[in-house]
Amino acid sequence: MQRIQDLPAEELKKLYDAELARYDGFVSAGLSINMARGTPCPEQLDLSEELLDIDMSPLHQCEDGDVRNYGILSGIPECRRLFAELCGVGPDNVIIGGCSSLQLMYDYVSQCVTKGPGVPGCAPWGEQNGVKFIAVVPGYDRHFGICEYLGIELVNVPITPEGPDMDAVEELIKDPSVKGMLCVPKYSNPDGVTYSAETVERLAKMTPAAPDFRVIWDNAYCVHDLYGDGDELPNILDVAAKYGHEDNFVVFVSTSKISFPGAGVSAVAGSDANIRSILGRMKYQIISYDKINQLRHVIFFRNLDGITAHMKRHAEILRPKFETVLGTLDRELTWTGAAHWIKPRGGYFISLYVDVGSASRVGELCKKAGLTITRVGATYPYGKDPDDANIRIAPSYPDCDTLKTAAELMCCCVRIAACEELLARV
Amino acid sequence: MQRIQDLPAEELKKLYDAELARYDGFVSAGLSINMARGTPCPEQLDLSEELLDIDMSPLHQCEDGDVRNYGILSGIPECRRLFAELCGVGPDNVIIGGCSSLQLMYDYVSQCVTKGPGVPGCAPWGEQNGVKFIAVVPGYDRHFGICEYLGIELVNVPITPEGPDMDAVEELIKDPSVKGMLCVPKYSNPDGVTYSAETVERLAKMTPAAPDFRVIWDNAYCVHDLYGDGDELPNILDVAAKYGHEDNFVVFVSTSKISFPGAGVSAVAGSDANIRSILGRMKYQIISYDKINQLRHVIFFRNLDGITAHMKRHAEILRPKFETVLGTLDRELTWTGAAHWIKPRGGYFISLYVDVGSASRVGELCKKAGLTITRVGATYPYGKDPDDANIRIAPSYPDCDTLKTAAELMCCCVRIAACEELLARV
Repeated sequence: MQRIQDLPAEELKKLYDAELARYDGFVSAGLSINMARGTPCPEQLDLSEELLDIDMSPLHQCEDGDVRNYGILSGIPECRRLFAELCGVGPDNVIIGGCSSLQLMYDYVSQCVTKGPGVPGCAPWGEQNGVKFIAVVPGYDRHFGICEYLGIELVNVPITPEGPDMDAVEELIKDPSVKGMLCVPKYSNPDGVTYSAETVERLAKMTPAAPDFRVIWDNAYCVHDLYGDGDELPNILDVAAKYGHEDNFVVFVSTSKISFPGAGVSAVAGSDANIRSILGRMKYQIISYDKINQLRHVIFFRNLDGITAHMKRHAEILRPKFETVLGTLDRELTWTGAAHWIKPRGGYFISLYVDVGSASRVGELCKKAGLTITRVGATYPYGKDPDDANIRIAPSYPDCDTLKTAAELMCCCVRIAACEELLARV
Repeated sequence: MQRIQDLPAEELKKLYDAELARYDGFVSAGLSINMARGTPCPEQLDLSEELLDIDMSPLHQCEDGDVRNYGILSGIPECRRLFAELCGVGPDNVIIGGCSSLQLMYDYVSQCVTKGPGVPGCAPWGEQNGVKFIAVVPGYDRHFGICEYLGIELVNVPITPEGPDMDAVEELIKDPSVKGMLCVPKYSNPDGVTYSAETVERLAKMTPAAPDFRVIWDNAYCVHDLYGDGDELPNILDVAAKYGHEDNFVVFVSTSKISFPGAGVSAVAGSDANIRSILGRMKYQIISYDKINQLRHVIFFRNLDGITAHMKRHAEILRPKFETVLGTLDRELTWTGAAHWIKPRGGYFISLYVDVGSASRVGELCKKAGLTITRVGATYPYGKDPDDANIRIAPSYPDCDTLKTAAELMCCCVRIAACEELLARV
C-alpha cells in the first residue's frame, strides 16, 4: 500500500470519508475508555492478594525490634536487604521510604532546593539563580511537575532508541546552572527505551560544571519485563564508581507496580555521601516509615527471586494487552507512514508519534468518541510538546477487547488527522 | 519536714551521705532503664492487635474506588470523615497523610519556606530574611528540629499552667519576621498543660504583623486522657473563625499513640485556603498515601466513639504508670522544695523542674546509674535549656515496678544535686 501522503487526491478523499464514517460508528457506540495513566488492572492487583491476607499479629519482631513501635529510620534490615538486592547495592546504601517513590524524589529535590545536595561549598539550589534540570523528553509528567513546582527550569533533551541524546546532554552540563537530570533509564516513560550500555557509560563518565549535579535515576520499571529476556540496564552506581562519580546519581524504586500502587514500599539507593545527606534530612522529617508494611512485603516476596517470579505473572497479564495495541498500530498505521512508535519490551507505555502538529487533533477526536488518553503535551515540561506529535498510550488497565476497540479508534483518529492535514494542503 | 535549703549544715551533710549511699545501691544494681521517649509499651500496642488481623483481601472498595490502586490524594472519604470527627471539622477540611504527622508538619513548614503558605503578596519564607518562629518552652524537640534544620530562628516563650505566656506572644507577633508558632495545645509535651479557653481565645484573636503567620497546632494528644473527665480544649478553628483568623492555624493529628507509632494514620486539618494550598503542593509530591491502611483504621475504629473507647484502654495501662512516678515524686521531693512539677491529666510526659543549673547534673547521675532520660536541654530549641532546670520524664514504656525504681533513683539524684549545690555554697 502507498503511504498516506503519496495517495492521489481522489483516494485520499475516499479514505477520509471512510474513516469519518468509521469514526461515527465509534461515536455512536457511546464508548467510555480510560487509557490516561499507567494504572495496573484489578487482575494485577489480585496477584498480591496474599499480601493482604498475612496475619501480622504474631509477627511483631524484625531484626531490630518491634515493627509496631517507633524507630528504625532507614527501614527494617530485612527490607533494606530486599531492596539492596533489587537495586544492586549493599543494604547500607538503601533507605526504605513510604508507599511512594515520587514522594522520595520530591523530598530529595526539595531538600536540594532548601539545603543543597550536601556538596561542601555549594549553596542550596534555592539560593542560586536560574537553576536548571535536563528533562529527557518525552518523559514522565510528575517528574516535570516536581521541578516546575519548585522553580527549577527544565531544558529538553530528546530521547533516542539508545537513551537521551548524549551529545546534547554533554553540551548542557557545561553550564554550571544545570544541576541535574530526570530520567527513567529502563523501559522509559513513555517510550519504553532502555538506556544502552554506551549511554550509561557516557552518563557515568560526565563531569558536569556544577559540582552539585544530581541525576534522579528513577528505576521505576527495573523488573517490569514483558518478555522472558528483559532488557539489561547496567548498574549506574557501579559504572559511576569507576569514575568516582557515584555521588552524581540517586536511584529510586518502588513496589507500586509490583504489589500495590500507593500501598507498597519505596526506596532510595545511593552513595554513602548521598545516603548520609538524605538521612540527615529525614531524621527531622519522620521518625520511621511504616515498618509493618515493610515486614509484610518481606514476608510476601522473600527475595529478588520472589519478586522476579511475581513479575512474570504481571507480564502474563500485560503482554497480551501491549500486543493487542501494538498489533493494531502495526496493522492500521504502519502502511500509512503517518505515525511511528517503538515497540517496548517492558514498562507501562507505548509512545506514539504522529505527524507534527496533529497530536492535539488526535486527542480531541479520541475524547469526542469517549476515549480518554494522557493529555497531549503532558509528556513534555510545562505540558507543551513543541512538535505537538507525541501521544502516550497506557494499555495496562482496560481488558484486551476494550483495548482493541480503543486502539482501532485511535488509529482511525490518526488517519483522520493525517487526511485533514493533507487535504488542507491541497 | 524542712525544705532542703533550710536544713542545718550538719543535717544537710547527713542527708547527702545517706543519698550517696542509696545511690551506690542503685549503681551496683546494674540497672538499664529507658525513659527517654514517649514510646507506647507492648501492652498498649497489643490493644490494636485486631487491626493487624483484619483480612483486607475481600475489602478493596472504598466509596471512591479500589484502595489497592492509585488515586484519592486527600484520603478515602470514610477516613476523612473519621478524622473530621476527631478534629471537629468538616470532611473537606481534612487531608489524610501517611503514618507520620511529623512528616506532615515538616512538609508544611518546608512548603512555607520554598513557596510560602499561600498568602497573596507574600514571598516564600526562604526568600525573606531572618524568619522566626515562637517556640513554647519547654516543648517538643522534633518541632524545634524542623525549624532548626530549615533555618527558622526560634524564640522562646515560656509555658504557664494556662498555656503559653500570652503577653509575651502578643508582644512578639508585632515583629513581621515572626512567622509562626509551634505548640502542643492539649497535654503539652512535656508539661501536660492544656491551653485554657482564655489562652485559646487570645491566640485566635491575635493579628500578627506578618500576614503569612501560621501556628503549627500539633494536637498530638487530643484524645489521650488519663482520667474519665479529660481536659477540654476549645476547637481552635472554630474560635479563630469568629475573628476571621482561621487561616492562621493548621491542625495536625495522628494515630501514632492510638494504634501504632509509625504505622498509623496522620491527618492535617485547616481552613479552606490552607487545605487548598497543601493539596496544591501534595499533588506534586505524591499520588496518594496508603489507602489500604486508611481503610484498615476505619474498619477498626469505625468512628470517634470507637476511638474514645479505645483510648480508655490505653488510659488503664498508662494511669498507674503516671501515678507511680507522680507518687514517688510527691513522697520524695515535695518536702525538699528542690523540685516542682505539674500533675498531667493526659499525654505522655511529666515535666520535672529542678533547681536552676542542676538538671544536667541530675541527668549525669541518672545515666551513670543506668537510667536513660531525655537528654537534658532537648526540651528547648538548639538543645539548650537556659536555666538547665527541666527534665522530661516519659513513663509510658517501662512497667510499674521498673518505673518505681527509676523514679526513686531520679529523686535520689535530684536530692544529691540539691545537696551538692547547697554544700558548695557553705
